[in-house]
Amino acid sequence: MGSVWFFQRVLVFGVVGILCVGWGVNGGYLKYNTSSGVVEGKLNVHLVPHSHDDVGWLKTVDQYYIGANNSIQGACVENVLDSVVESLRRDPNRKFVFVEMAFFQRWWTEQSLETQEQVRKLVDDGRLEFINGGWCMHDEATCHYIDMIDQTTLGHSYIKSQFNKVPRAGWQIDPFGHSAVQAYLLSAEVGFESVHFARIDYQDRAKRKGDKSLEVIWRGSKTFGSSSQIFANAFPVHYSPPNGFHFEVNDDSAPVQDNPLLYDYNVETRVQDFVNAALTQANVTRTNHIMWTMGDDFQYQYAESWFKEMDKLIHYVNKDGRVNALYSTPSLYTDAKYAANETWPLKTDDYFPYADGKNAYWTGFFTSRAALKRFVHLLSGYYLAARQLEFLAGKRSKGPNTFGLGDALGILQHHDAVTGTAKQHTTNDYAKRLTIGASEAEIVVNSALTCLAKKKSGGQCEVQESTFSQVVVAYNSLGWSRTDVIRIPSHNLHQVNDANLVVKDSSGNTIEAQFVTIDEVTKNLRQFYTEAYLGKQPKEAPKYWLHFLVSVPPLGWNTYFILKRDNRAKGRHRLTSEVKSSQNDTIEVGPGDFKMSFSSTSGQLKRIYNSKTGVDVPIQQTYLWYGSSTGDADPQSSGAYIFRPIGAPPTIVSRSVPIKVIRGELVDEIHQEFASWIYQVTRLYKDKEHAEIEFTIGPIPTDDSLGKEVITRLTANMATDKVFYTDSNGRDFLKRIRDYREDWPLVVTQPVAGNYYPLNLGIYTVDKKSELSVLVDRATGGASIADGQVELMLHRGRVPHGRRRMIADDGRGVGEALDETVCIKSTCQGLTVRGNYYVSINPVGAGAKWRRTTGQEVYSPLLLAFTHEKVENWTASYTTTSSSFEPNYSLPLNVALITLQELDDGSVLLRLAHLYEAGEDPDYSTLAKVELKKMFSGKTVTNQEKSKMKARSWKVEGDKGKVEPTPVKGSPLNKSTLVVELGPMEIRTFLLNF
Amino acid sequence: MGSVWFFQRVLVFGVVGILCVGWGVNGGYLKYNTSSGVVEGKLNVHLVPHSHDDVGWLKTVDQYYIGANNSIQGACVENVLDSVVESLRRDPNRKFVFVEMAFFQRWWTEQSLETQEQVRKLVDDGRLEFINGGWCMHDEATCHYIDMIDQTTLGHSYIKSQFNKVPRAGWQIDPFGHSAVQAYLLSAEVGFESVHFARIDYQDRAKRKGDKSLEVIWRGSKTFGSSSQIFANAFPVHYSPPNGFHFEVNDDSAPVQDNPLLYDYNVETRVQDFVNAALTQANVTRTNHIMWTMGDDFQYQYAESWFKEMDKLIHYVNKDGRVNALYSTPSLYTDAKYAANETWPLKTDDYFPYADGKNAYWTGFFTSRAALKRFVHLLSGYYLAARQLEFLAGKRSKGPNTFGLGDALGILQHHDAVTGTAKQHTTNDYAKRLTIGASEAEIVVNSALTCLAKKKSGGQCEVQESTFSQVVVAYNSLGWSRTDVIRIPSHNLHQVNDANLVVKDSSGNTIEAQFVTIDEVTKNLRQFYTEAYLGKQPKEAPKYWLHFLVSVPPLGWNTYFILKRDNRAKGRHRLTSEVKSSQNDTIEVGPGDFKMSFSSTSGQLKRIYNSKTGVDVPIQQTYLWYGSSTGDADPQSSGAYIFRPIGAPPTIVSRSVPIKVIRGELVDEIHQEFASWIYQVTRLYKDKEHAEIEFTIGPIPTDDSLGKEVITRLTANMATDKVFYTDSNGRDFLKRIRDYREDWPLVVTQPVAGNYYPLNLGIYTVDKKSELSVLVDRATGGASIADGQVELMLHRGRVPHGRRRMIADDGRGVGEALDETVCIKSTCQGLTVRGNYYVSINPVGAGAKWRRTTGQEVYSPLLLAFTHEKVENWTASYTTTSSSFEPNYSLPLNVALITLQELDDGSVLLRLAHLYEAGEDPDYSTLAKVELKKMFSGKTVTNQEKSKMKARSWKVEGDKGKVEPTPVKGSPLNKSTLVVELGPMEIRTFLLNF
Repeated sequence: MGSVWFFQRVLVFGVVGILCVGWGVNGGYLKYNTSSGVVEGKLNVHLVPHSHDDVGWLKTVDQYYIGANNSIQGACVENVLDSVVESLRRDPNRKFVFVEMAFFQRWWTEQSLETQEQVRKLVDDGRLEFINGGWCMHDEATCHYIDMIDQTTLGHSYIKSQFNKVPRAGWQIDPFGHSAVQAYLLSAEVGFESVHFARIDYQDRAKRKGDKSLEVIWRGSKTFGSSSQIFANAFPVHYSPPNGFHFEVNDDSAPVQDNPLLYDYNVETRVQDFVNAALTQANVTRTNHIMWTMGDDFQYQYAESWFKEMDKLIHYVNKDGRVNALYSTPSLYTDAKYAANETWPLKTDDYFPYADGKNAYWTGFFTSRAALKRFVHLLSGYYLAARQLEFLAGKRSKGPNTFGLGDALGILQHHDAVTGTAKQHTTNDYAKRLTIGASEAEIVVNSALTCLAKKKSGGQCEVQESTFSQVVVAYNSLGWSRTDVIRIPSHNLHQVNDANLVVKDSSGNTIEAQFVTIDEVTKNLRQFYTEAYLGKQPKEAPKYWLHFLVSVPPLGWNTYFILKRDNRAKGRHRLTSEVKSSQNDTIEVGPGDFKMSFSSTSGQLKRIYNSKTGVDVPIQQTYLWYGSSTGDADPQSSGAYIFRPIGAPPTIVSRSVPIKVIRGELVDEIHQEFASWIYQVTRLYKDKEHAEIEFTIGPIPTDDSLGKEVITRLTANMATDKVFYTDSNGRDFLKRIRDYREDWPLVVTQPVAGNYYPLNLGIYTVDKKSELSVLVDRATGGASIADGQVELMLHRGRVPHGRRRMIADDGRGVGEALDETVCIKSTCQGLTVRGNYYVSINPVGAGAKWRRTTGQEVYSPLLLAFTHEKVENWTASYTTTSSSFEPNYSLPLNVALITLQELDDGSVLLRLAHLYEAGEDPDYSTLAKVELKKMFSGKTVTNQEKSKMKARSWKVEGDKGKVEPTPVKGSPLNKSTLVVELGPMEIRTFLLNF
Repeated sequence: MGSVWFFQRVLVFGVVGILCVGWGVNGGYLKYNTSSGVVEGKLNVHLVPHSHDDVGWLKTVDQYYIGANNSIQGACVENVLDSVVESLRRDPNRKFVFVEMAFFQRWWTEQSLETQEQVRKLVDDGRLEFINGGWCMHDEATCHYIDMIDQTTLGHSYIKSQFNKVPRAGWQIDPFGHSAVQAYLLSAEVGFESVHFARIDYQDRAKRKGDKSLEVIWRGSKTFGSSSQIFANAFPVHYSPPNGFHFEVNDDSAPVQDNPLLYDYNVETRVQDFVNAALTQANVTRTNHIMWTMGDDFQYQYAESWFKEMDKLIHYVNKDGRVNALYSTPSLYTDAKYAANETWPLKTDDYFPYADGKNAYWTGFFTSRAALKRFVHLLSGYYLAARQLEFLAGKRSKGPNTFGLGDALGILQHHDAVTGTAKQHTTNDYAKRLTIGASEAEIVVNSALTCLAKKKSGGQCEVQESTFSQVVVAYNSLGWSRTDVIRIPSHNLHQVNDANLVVKDSSGNTIEAQFVTIDEVTKNLRQFYTEAYLGKQPKEAPKYWLHFLVSVPPLGWNTYFILKRDNRAKGRHRLTSEVKSSQNDTIEVGPGDFKMSFSSTSGQLKRIYNSKTGVDVPIQQTYLWYGSSTGDADPQSSGAYIFRPIGAPPTIVSRSVPIKVIRGELVDEIHQEFASWIYQVTRLYKDKEHAEIEFTIGPIPTDDSLGKEVITRLTANMATDKVFYTDSNGRDFLKRIRDYREDWPLVVTQPVAGNYYPLNLGIYTVDKKSELSVLVDRATGGASIADGQVELMLHRGRVPHGRRRMIADDGRGVGEALDETVCIKSTCQGLTVRGNYYVSINPVGAGAKWRRTTGQEVYSPLLLAFTHEKVENWTASYTTTSSSFEPNYSLPLNVALITLQELDDGSVLLRLAHLYEAGEDPDYSTLAKVELKKMFSGKTVTNQEKSKMKARSWKVEGDKGKVEPTPVKGSPLNKSTLVVELGPMEIRTFLLNF
């Protein structure tokens, strides 16, 4: 400030004129014109106001909702909904899309009738539109399709019941890659007209920007082809607005300053910025419609801060006239795209794996938090069975129900939940929700089983307190009858904690039972985890596993009794164990046709063969680990999201391993201790054509400060020619080719991480003679890094604080290393993970039967209930075995019952799924029939099949003149016979009334 | 997450019951009961929702309003007002107080009629209350009382005109210390019933908390005593809520979680937190009423985030019942305090200086940005004169007016504006506003002067383009006639750039003129600053200062003509200069009675004496600097706010100084170059009883990286016994005692910084014989660090980035070092500051006359206008001299006209101020009379004197039985004579209609 001369200047006549910004001029109120719709012949910029609200991540879902724990992240979804409603009411042209119904439901129940009325009006007017509309924005790599359907149904039902609306658009903006099942099943088949997302491979994106193929017609299903296609929109940058157009409170984008009475009037500048950003995007987009995603994570906490700026931009940009700006939604945007009559590129398969940089393959989360992933998978099957039982016993209007578990599972499908990419405290909250939901479902299950089995004198079934007993009730939630070996620790069943027991079936016949001493690893685990989680030592340790064979009818149960052995009848139980055959270098194991042979010197697997099919494959199996990169010249480290191994090949845990073989009449077990922290039990059942391999991994040693990503690897002598197959969300199998992408010439930067794919069902490889198939018991990362190899990443230990890469914000990660621990007081150790995978070999072309059937059995294990009662008392009061189907009826083996659920209004939701793709199996990839009358014996069924909207006929590049085979689909339900037909991969949904 | 055993547990009958948090239970809508008023017999917690919105600080006022530049600070006052109105409408019990009308006015003009209607209703209902209500929250240390009145009037008029309301409470929560003038003049006399603030000395606060004396009855005026008292509330901590009750979006205080369906239900905890915080505060507060200031800087950007939490707290706390929570305002709080009939401590004097730590005396800002402070002070006087002229010439409804300058000055009074504590870019914005406002006012002034002086043929006065001329019109805005020496650079007046000029008065008589060669320092400054600020070199440099004596009637003007000297008449101009008298060690200077003597060897001042009064004081004067502390064991550094010198005594710039004396008939000048960066010219005028000392300081050398706080120090041989006097906002003088506070036993930690006080008028000391008085030309820090000494801090150079200390937030400072620079392209140097201070000596008891009269003359210098015209043409067309008063009428010397302003409705605001305190001067501390009829000669005056509310009679400790002398006050205006009476210190305000 120059003071010296100013005095003179001020007081002199005739000073040079200075811009007069006097208060005499009145800035005044200005009503902005925001009414623009689409304008033909102009570039239309569709502004889509949205808030991306994670259903838990850095904070728990409730903390996000209420705005607690803001020191971690400033986020409050209650603010978003409160303020959006207020802002929408201010101008009828404003629009907003809302996505996550888990949040909306929390908010909705807290609102006054007046607010609810206002919101209903906003929804009716299309100003507030629900898109995606599931409970959460589910992940697409680590979710099972049944969970995806369930969580979507949960949200859509809520929308339907409160607003009588059906979402029109898929909005998967944040998940880390996109699945084929999402495209056809969770989008097209759900009735969406479009699906929108931000995250695709950076190389893919670059190519698509070049040839304007970010927007495509996506046909995710080989079986359905064009009959289940969807308009798919991959964003050119991210799901945030162009730079300089973020308008959250305190954001530093320049607001439009249009008051001539204030300084820094910037209307022309901001309009120019807008036009520039629009033209840049138009340059990579077909048609004269582009979408701006006006929002970001947990934005619109004060919605007016966004809307007032958008109002001004629309007003002034349209006054300028070079481009046309409008409030829009993905649905309206898609309408405009369709109306443009453009021809679109075709996209098949999926968008996995996702990378946002050369060393940033998001393939770590396929395995991150393996225990949580198992918990979700386990409860998914349990939830299916629990809803069946809830329906079969008659749903109660009060008291415990399965909603809590459905809610928890719905939340867990979120793309930072089951993915294992949330903070530890959030993960604990997820586990708590699952536990509480499961506990409530368990009460439903117990009460339903008791009620169903109880012999009735008539009237409604009543619950009674059941007392402890050695009765075992096994419930089968599959639509076909099954025979399985049950394995239970003996102390759960009887006061007598030893092998001195017999098992009888419901007819009183003693059946085969096999006792196996519980190994030390399991005993120690039980000891440690019981104290860590329950705060006390278990009272008594069981000594034996009791195995026995059960047989259960479809959707039914059977009862078994475990009794103290009569001392007079001796000698039937087996406790044989064989350590090594010294005579021969090879140990052969397997009570049935399926056999494995091991080297007695190295303890390693050498060969698998099936004496019935004659398939015989030399094969090794071992454990290895990749060291987690902590960054080098490129600072990218491995992390919860990203798998980046250090450059070296994986380290083999051990080349020779102690082996112990236990043989029995029901099951042979091979125990191998690969290291002090890796224990494996392989179980070969008499009547199963596969090996069930139980791994126990942990605590992963980290004395060397190196994070370790532990894999098991099967190396078969098979010429697989880079090809392998992995499932899409547990449903379709997709062909994968190592170091190759269908859509662009891949530059290989990460030869391991870049070849990993997500598994929910399994992985298989094929050569000219055989198929080698592996099924998993949870979401797992899998790959075939060399021909003949199959590997699964089973556990990740102390993986560094990986950075979640986001455009323009490198630091927005989960902010924690993936370092799961278990503590007794202050003594902590790395988490131990236990689970199973299943290995089979089949002749070429015959593997699908095993994969599909076994897959269902793994997903839906027998549900066991235990009580204590004298056999004669029990049989007098209870029906010991029964099916809810008509006697001897069962579903065909290519059809699964994926939902059977009584709704609040008393109607019943039934979903049947054909399990085979077209051409997958000569016998089963055919039209299947289900007789509803026989499924619901003794009930009168009336049905309203859910109708599907008429699909649009988009013009697709290369389609012209090409004739596609019509997929086999079932006819409409015959209303008199009530026979349901299902073509390959078909899922049909019915609402039944009895 | 333990996966291992859970599977078993889930499937076992009869699991231990787990808290069922099912979705079956409906959380539901809850209407909170917020209707509580005051409850007798309970502790009442008054929640006062507020937002503290600085009228410029880290960002400019417009940036704060619109929410621009959020990368510096997230703040948008538009959001605050938008969202507060929305939230207030949601619940009739909610309340909000708004303070800064500069912001409100920006917002209000942009609102729709509908919104304005809603807001009017909120104001009418008392839900939105304006408190303080000035244009800004003015500073109390660096503002002149006339500016404080003007800016308060600007805001209050706006409130009155739009809402017909008068603010009831003062709300000075942030200013850095509190003045006596604030207490009585800007609070009590304004009609406030209370004043509230946060910042008082930390030692004072500690004591007041101990004896519950934070709340006092404050009598700021010695003259008025209890007749101008106010209830003053110093907050126990700060103006934010208690810890844990901040509810801005993204704040991390725990929200009240009262939905039993979500986790982390915390109602009981939060109620307990509330009760604890309330009881803690009640412990330091009298009566059962405490106030919680529910807000902070720029909070309520999304008001609902605060209100929804306060709703819940009020609901649940009152349900709990231990204390009573209610929405309130400072006015309602004060009503409750008054109703409690408590006796309150008495507070006199003021709350300066303010310290918030032992090394954190906020006395640096008394001087920070000395050039800006001068700019404000200069324009304050100019604004006063401009409004007079605008009124006298007749205010125009269109075209330039003085509002812009009033608005800018209103903004500049903000406690981060004139204080010099804003960021540089904000300071530039302030200077721009002042410049533009002044430029517009200048047009008004020029046009008015032309118009007034023009001889009329009748009809309305019209503006004409004036052409450059050597005519000088001097306007006198004082109410009495004055004689002054004018000093102007000669080139501004005439093409002839030399001393060959004569000056004639309006009667054509040649008058005394004196030319003085312009010194090199001034020439260089002019050169450098012209290029730096105008981007080009000045065309021609003036060589001389021309001095001549003018005489101007009250509220009138006189005209002088400067002509080229007739070559025939030579020899009258003087250009004498005398360097040193070699014969004698002493140089005596002074053309009149007031004389100074200097040492010819050291060049230093030795003595001042007045030959008329006989006062004679040995006195030295020099320059020194304090090094700015950058922190030591205590990290507190000196900064824009805080003055913390390094421990050492100040460094003397020079002990001997070159001296040059220039003698003339009008003025003698003493030029002293104390250093290459300190130049001083002392001017002694023939008819003035003081020295006018012009200092030029800068660029302050900082090669040694040490910040320097430059002072001038007068050391007189006087026994002043620790006592000195400083003004309060340019009005009352307060007695100061070194190292002492009236209200508590001071622990001296900063013997220099802790004894600094703010000056706006001046400082004086007294011994038994004499008074030594110093007046300043701007806000300045001053002190008397040793007996007989007076020092002024004149400039602060490269003072470190001092931390603004705030409770619980140490880092919220201005974030910049105080390092003012001036640049030509990229070459920068420290800012040079030039100004004057005025020194006089008087016999004991006689100093007030000089201080009061000279103070007015310094504040209101003659306003000069220049044009170019032949003398005979000018005199033919224009009235050369005139007063707007009746001939020969002038105001008494103890009364000043502080406002004369035509309002928009045509009425005229007149404010008269008595200039003397009771007992200050035997002649002038008396009842004065002003004849309005003579002031407005030829006009018929009707008046509405502004009425004052009846004051409350608070009970005050020590008052009982004590009889206080009644202050002398003027009678109500006699409506026929229109004679106004004013007692000492009285200010009377009239609305006149002609």
